[in-house]
Amino acid sequence: MVKFKVKDMDIASGGTLVAILNEKDAKKLDLHSADRILVKHNSKNVTCILDISESSKAVPEGSVGLFEEVLDRLHVKHKDLVDIRFTGKPESVKHIRDKLLGKELNYTELYHITDDITHDRLTDIEKTYFVAASFTHGLSIQEVISLTKAMVQTGKTLKFPGVTLDKHCIGGVPGNRTTMIVVPIVAAAGYTIPKTSSRAITSPAGTADTMECLAKVEMSEAKIKQVVRKTRACIVHGGSINLAPADDKIIEVEHPLSIDAEGQLLASVMAKKHSVSANHVLIDIPMGKSVKARNMKEANHLKKMFELIGKKLHMNVQVVITDGSHPIGNGIGPLLEAEDVMAVLRNDPLAPRDLKEKSLMLAGQLLELVCECKKGDGLKKATEILESGKALEKMHDIINAQGKEKKPELGQHRYPVHSSKSGKIIEIDNDIIAKVARIAGAPTDKGAGLYLTKKIHDPVKKGDLLYTIYAMSEFKLNLAKDFLHKNNGYMVR
Amino acid sequence: MVKFKVKDMDIASGGTLVAILNEKDAKKLDLHSADRILVKHNSKNVTCILDISESSKAVPEGSVGLFEEVLDRLHVKHKDLVDIRFTGKPESVKHIRDKLLGKELNYTELYHITDDITHDRLTDIEKTYFVAASFTHGLSIQEVISLTKAMVQTGKTLKFPGVTLDKHCIGGVPGNRTTMIVVPIVAAAGYTIPKTSSRAITSPAGTADTMECLAKVEMSEAKIKQVVRKTRACIVHGGSINLAPADDKIIEVEHPLSIDAEGQLLASVMAKKHSVSANHVLIDIPMGKSVKARNMKEANHLKKMFELIGKKLHMNVQVVITDGSHPIGNGIGPLLEAEDVMAVLRNDPLAPRDLKEKSLMLAGQLLELVCECKKGDGLKKATEILESGKALEKMHDIINAQGKEKKPELGQHRYPVHSSKSGKIIEIDNDIIAKVARIAGAPTDKGAGLYLTKKIHDPVKKGDLLYTIYAMSEFKLNLAKDFLHKNNGYMVR
Repeated sequence: MVKFKVKDMDIASGGTLVAILNEKDAKKLDLHSADRILVKHNSKNVTCILDISESSKAVPEGSVGLFEEVLDRLHVKHKDLVDIRFTGKPESVKHIRDKLLGKELNYTELYHITDDITHDRLTDIEKTYFVAASFTHGLSIQEVISLTKAMVQTGKTLKFPGVTLDKHCIGGVPGNRTTMIVVPIVAAAGYTIPKTSSRAITSPAGTADTMECLAKVEMSEAKIKQVVRKTRACIVHGGSINLAPADDKIIEVEHPLSIDAEGQLLASVMAKKHSVSANHVLIDIPMGKSVKARNMKEANHLKKMFELIGKKLHMNVQVVITDGSHPIGNGIGPLLEAEDVMAVLRNDPLAPRDLKEKSLMLAGQLLELVCECKKGDGLKKATEILESGKALEKMHDIINAQGKEKKPELGQHRYPVHSSKSGKIIEIDNDIIAKVARIAGAPTDKGAGLYLTKKIHDPVKKGDLLYTIYAMSEFKLNLAKDFLHKNNGYMVR
Repeated sequence: MVKFKVKDMDIASGGTLVAILNEKDAKKLDLHSADRILVKHNSKNVTCILDISESSKAVPEGSVGLFEEVLDRLHVKHKDLVDIRFTGKPESVKHIRDKLLGKELNYTELYHITDDITHDRLTDIEKTYFVAASFTHGLSIQEVISLTKAMVQTGKTLKFPGVTLDKHCIGGVPGNRTTMIVVPIVAAAGYTIPKTSSRAITSPAGTADTMECLAKVEMSEAKIKQVVRKTRACIVHGGSINLAPADDKIIEVEHPLSIDAEGQLLASVMAKKHSVSANHVLIDIPMGKSVKARNMKEANHLKKMFELIGKKLHMNVQVVITDGSHPIGNGIGPLLEAEDVMAVLRNDPLAPRDLKEKSLMLAGQLLELVCECKKGDGLKKATEILESGKALEKMHDIINAQGKEKKPELGQHRYPVHSSKSGKIIEIDNDIIAKVARIAGAPTDKGAGLYLTKKIHDPVKKGDLLYTIYAMSEFKLNLAKDFLHKNNGYMVR
């Protein structure tokens, strides 16, 4: 043990527990960047990741720079004395190295890794090696199951008794807000469906962002249980209750290279479902050139994997492969998508027909998964529930139970995009549509986004309105306009 | 372009060009951690890697936090206004992604990656993906050659006319300071051998650390050329003149997981040799369970690869596989190794015989690589040069040309390690010997380390001295003593 004087770095590191030593001290103690050191004060101690400062202005010799997170846990302040001791790297670093060398990891090893990721005990470099190794070598079925269980174990879980339904879409399609229609239909049919959703990371809106235009989505475990007891359903933000938190931290590392490792995708989805004790799960795999499953072969492979893992985890999993080649619904962006959803639930004749049809199909499949009924009866039942107004009524119950949210305003700065030629719309580019909506402000500005007037296969004349951009400021509207001056995402031929 | 007020973070980032925005500003601009942004002030601009601060204490809204490196390049100070614009990620990130997907990269792509690594334009996560992908998929011969050339191109090069020799050991064996004996022998034989060496990263001494006990090793390109013109040789620190700098930055990322990707090892060695225009190169591959080549199969594979790449780069490469299972020489640590070297050069009868024999063998091989002579004549010639005192004389010339360095003091705090039983020494553990020497202070404390009295295969009696630990302080001596209380590294049977 060696004594060091605390320097309060006066910022938060944002999670990771870091301690900074001056280069000279690190050399003396033969310590390297990313080594683990135990920082001790009275009876408290914290294992930190070592960072090394070349500047003695930032951290002078004899001092250790600590961030808020560590100061709080140790109950120390500027100029206090702490003891420092080298501790080996966590066990999990050895397991990551094994995976990199091609070894198959067992449950205990994957648990160590997941636990250390959850508690910010690994550096970005170490986490990246894990993701890269899992990506290049792949994860075996057994590894995916272990990783799924480890993700569940290292997070919160919500238990519901008996038959519990869930649905999930692996994403990539703008609009496509089926969850908010499927959930009230299924709950109105008398089934429990506690839906936890995510916010957008790279898309213009997540289900949590969209639902938040109508109701509160951030709530405690106890509150969620109360909502589900009252209405059989909920549509909340999963992030607020720490379900499988390792998953989000792995996604953070995948993001810089836009990779999507299959094993991690499977474990991520299954862990979120397992965490809410879902036992009947419908998974929507959109297929199209810009989404995860780019062709039928990839989609069928993923389908097989989901079903296999479901079986091993004693979950009744059904997978549907859907058309992911173009946006679903008219609105793109939280409020515009929420309005589509409510239009479908209200049986508004102007509601987007593609969104309605897809939602009914999914709800039908989910009902057939649990009821003793003929093929096709699920869709019939779902349609009845929607058309009778019971789904709308259920949605109002859910909104009221979660707590009404003041409806945001629609962006007042608008720009119409017209077709430059006549013909038929043969392609709508998901990526461009999503990017324009994001630049216009979605999902942060809830009222920003696009409203599509023309959809795939529609005939158009030169000058016809294709879509309208909505933004909360002239500045963002101009950014969006600038972006699409080369390509508006529509291909007309 | 959006205007931000500069906040001087008052520290150096240690290389990478980083700009920090508040979370809220980043959201507004749809920017993510590790996105690249262009920071502009008057006519100057710098592309930075974006970091995001959750705390408005660290970086408030409307401000951009900049480190010393960026402030200097932009000529801005605290509270100045700068423009900020999103720029795409560097091209190289796409190439790294391709490599991760298993694609073979061409020269241009590897050049982009190497250039961006050299100039700190990639994040740790991005660099790690490159190393992990190269490790798991491997690099093809063509990729190794491209990477080698790219590493040379993106660094400084030193040109010497005509026949230029070099030697390299891929490391892992404590002691083993053959370079400082081979170089003066070969130079005394009339050949040019401009040796650039490295400092220790994980070992108790590098050749640069050891040579520095006798002479200056940090010098300019011009000074190196002058030394070589005068003496035909030099033994300097390669790091001081930026030869293939990408190599060191890749090694930094390999270090946390102690991986040693073959492709990167090959490119690293060949780039350093190519950078000094060496055309006749001897490579020493120690073989043993704790070094890079763990068995004959691995050693032979590496040998074949080095020779093949040598051919493609028009270098005459010869590889010798040597015994890497135990330390070579008596001293471990800079000064103790320097004394071994000088004892061999002085033909001191007490000089370590294993170090002398290995050095003569290597020098002999190197001479045979360039002279028109029979097998065995090289060794004969090397032995003559050493025994005649010409090698010692050459070493003094080199030391004088580089500039004499005041000899450091040997550690005054010493601890003898005795054998706990009688028998024969059947194993000396490289890793334990290296670790004890490092804990005792080597290589930072030049006079610290171990002196081995007994060597492999020696008979010992219980109580015989095995080795002595040297340290510069009682504190470090105690740390070293503590470390070896379970295992002193010697196996006696």
